[in-house]
Amino acid sequence: MMPRTPLTPEFIASLTSLLGDRFTTSLPVRDHHGRDESIFPAMPPDAVAFARSTEDIVQIVDACRHHGVPIVPYGAGSSLEGHTLAAEGGLCLNVQQMDQIIAIDADDQTATVQPGVTREALNAHLRDTGLFFPVDPGADASLGGMCATRASGTNAVRYGTMRENVVNLTVITADGQTIKTGRRARKSAAGYDLTRLFVGSEGTLGVIAEATVRLYPLPEAIMAAVCAFPDINAAVASVVQIIQLGVPVARCEFVDAVAIRALNAYSNTGLPEVPHLFFEFHGSDAGLREQIELVQSITEDHGAAQFEWASTPEARSKLWKARHTIYFAASQLRPGARSVVTDVCVPISQLAECVWETSQDLQREGIIAPIVGHVGDGNFHVQMLVDADVPAEVAQAEQLNARLVARALAMDGTCTGEHGIGLHKQGFLVDELGSASVEVMRQIKHALDPGNIMNPGKVFAF
Amino acid sequence: MMPRTPLTPEFIASLTSLLGDRFTTSLPVRDHHGRDESIFPAMPPDAVAFARSTEDIVQIVDACRHHGVPIVPYGAGSSLEGHTLAAEGGLCLNVQQMDQIIAIDADDQTATVQPGVTREALNAHLRDTGLFFPVDPGADASLGGMCATRASGTNAVRYGTMRENVVNLTVITADGQTIKTGRRARKSAAGYDLTRLFVGSEGTLGVIAEATVRLYPLPEAIMAAVCAFPDINAAVASVVQIIQLGVPVARCEFVDAVAIRALNAYSNTGLPEVPHLFFEFHGSDAGLREQIELVQSITEDHGAAQFEWASTPEARSKLWKARHTIYFAASQLRPGARSVVTDVCVPISQLAECVWETSQDLQREGIIAPIVGHVGDGNFHVQMLVDADVPAEVAQAEQLNARLVARALAMDGTCTGEHGIGLHKQGFLVDELGSASVEVMRQIKHALDPGNIMNPGKVFAF
Repeated sequence: MMPRTPLTPEFIASLTSLLGDRFTTSLPVRDHHGRDESIFPAMPPDAVAFARSTEDIVQIVDACRHHGVPIVPYGAGSSLEGHTLAAEGGLCLNVQQMDQIIAIDADDQTATVQPGVTREALNAHLRDTGLFFPVDPGADASLGGMCATRASGTNAVRYGTMRENVVNLTVITADGQTIKTGRRARKSAAGYDLTRLFVGSEGTLGVIAEATVRLYPLPEAIMAAVCAFPDINAAVASVVQIIQLGVPVARCEFVDAVAIRALNAYSNTGLPEVPHLFFEFHGSDAGLREQIELVQSITEDHGAAQFEWASTPEARSKLWKARHTIYFAASQLRPGARSVVTDVCVPISQLAECVWETSQDLQREGIIAPIVGHVGDGNFHVQMLVDADVPAEVAQAEQLNARLVARALAMDGTCTGEHGIGLHKQGFLVDELGSASVEVMRQIKHALDPGNIMNPGKVFAF
Repeated sequence: MMPRTPLTPEFIASLTSLLGDRFTTSLPVRDHHGRDESIFPAMPPDAVAFARSTEDIVQIVDACRHHGVPIVPYGAGSSLEGHTLAAEGGLCLNVQQMDQIIAIDADDQTATVQPGVTREALNAHLRDTGLFFPVDPGADASLGGMCATRASGTNAVRYGTMRENVVNLTVITADGQTIKTGRRARKSAAGYDLTRLFVGSEGTLGVIAEATVRLYPLPEAIMAAVCAFPDINAAVASVVQIIQLGVPVARCEFVDAVAIRALNAYSNTGLPEVPHLFFEFHGSDAGLREQIELVQSITEDHGAAQFEWASTPEARSKLWKARHTIYFAASQLRPGARSVVTDVCVPISQLAECVWETSQDLQREGIIAPIVGHVGDGNFHVQMLVDADVPAEVAQAEQLNARLVARALAMDGTCTGEHGIGLHKQGFLVDELGSASVEVMRQIKHALDPGNIMNPGKVFAF
């Protein structure tokens, strides 16, 4: 994929007149927006626009459509699958300055935000309301980006993913219309579910200008703990049993021995270098006691060590901060290496086998690659550290990735639980759903964006 | 809307050769499939086909596309908004004989069924597994129909609607392709959310041939109770507080005084003729105690009478059976009358006002019209009893309906929480989302069903 045509002076003039210095073709700014955490080479856009309002987006989309310029929406830039790379050049539409929290409806437990609001900013704003927004993909992602990639994370096992937690969206379509995908009622049977169509569409159907999301009452009590296991199977089998018994754990994270080693080196956590589960429990005092007793008895049956509690808010926050730094901590295991990150999700009955076979495969190949995951959902990640300058290493990692996806698909799982398709997994999407299903997606894309200006080159070939 | 063209002898011959006596143009069978519970006049199809397999559906769709014949999918026929009426004639595709439960995956808590399986049949089949399927719209609807209309019902406040409980679908598209919309993993970020696109598409985008749905562990303890209130506001305000406090009630149903009067007459329930809430609580013994204490204290604060418990399974089953007979019981309040049924759903903060204003409006108009609802979701129904032969009465009911929808929309609610758009609410859909949003739906419809053979005339004009 290549940039289509250079930006015309007319396009540049129209965007400059619209946005002033919030439109730029400066090389450093373009470069900054053309890189991400993925293994892909940099793909800088031809220009970058900083929107401040829905009306800005409408005008930018109109200009881009008129001039046939691709639009790549950009939130926090934390995608792992190349979503924000300008695969066909064009304009990067940065929404970071659209960072207003428009409304908190405490009685209805909803928040309406601009797309550049990050999940941490939203939760900081909610601090005194007794409410919180649960979806937590690790990175301090923007809400717009989280909607676009159907993000999830550590809390999804209890609170669901963005699929369940977006109430409605305001979207600018390719033809410049501003549409509302739903109202603020908790449920609706009114027409096609446009909200869910745009959630996970990765910017290919329109630009998200506003989102209303669900909030939840802060639980009466919260407890968190880590628990060490003799081996991978013991840890994963415990999770499977916890989920099958319907224990409403709020977080249930698997962290393998390699990841623990990375954490210890990076965060000085001093944990035994064996597989762990990190838990969080939400509920009333009595409910918490019940959950914890049940989970402890299950983990003990699988030979786990005693729980190490993080009972104060500070200790809890330190624990989850450590969990979220694994990605960066792991990168330090091999200085200078790049990460090939992948994630799959399988039915819970297949999880133990899938994780085990994957760990064996990684060991055979001798690649440093921590396995961590939101295992309560059947979802786990592999972060393979490679020397990006050695093609054989990159190829080896891609082969491991392909085998992992094939393994997950053979178990009726998905090629990505939460990272999305982006540039990386387009072939796997066809393997997963078949070409007829992808053709239906393509028909929708052609209908809604006939000029292919919305994040072209992502999810599937136009 | 009128039938397009008469069925050709070629079409009749091809369907007869395919299905034998499972294809018929007999008048009584057509008549039976051309009526429903809605106020619309009968709209019989030109023929009826009974499918037994996915392959049958593929061949029927191919024949219909080839001959330009509309297809109206038909499950249990329990739609309240005219979904199964053959608005443009054509073929009614009855899937009642596709009643096989294909797989129960107890470890993953999923069931895969053919579309003609009803929710009661599925739950009967699950009886010894410790699992159940929660979505309960009252009628013993087919799972295919429930997917197609995004059904919900009494349990949705805790377990979600079909939106949350469909894992994946097998769909036959208008061009005869058999597509799978997802895998069996609990979550996925792989491509557009085709599952949610077809859930709620009311048969206008394809025919559902198979569905995988979520199951839940039977709760350790279940308790149900009814509770009488001095007035509507006290009942509804209690619900609002219960939901805002995050109490995980499993069912929370409002039944107004008119509906109670109908129930007493029909089911001999002997309840005081005042507004009631019907509750069900699911959980562990300790969890149940907590929920019940909290709910009792809230209802008492609002002047409610003491809970009347239905503690045995038999008493519980009797209670919910009574709840589900309200529709028929209410019909008896005015012998010979037809029901104009409507449902709206509003943000919970607006519920008390919306129900109250609606009750005042109904009273002013002097129409017999019970109000009942799944109020934990902000969703309620009005069943207006009219003499269908008196146009002024029908018009009056439609005006009440229009005012109710306008009221709900002004409160950021939806024109239908669970019944769907069908033939009846197409104008309201535009009022709710705007013509640009409906245009996006139309573009999707045109892309996926350019010949408009899939349940034409429903949701919006082609």
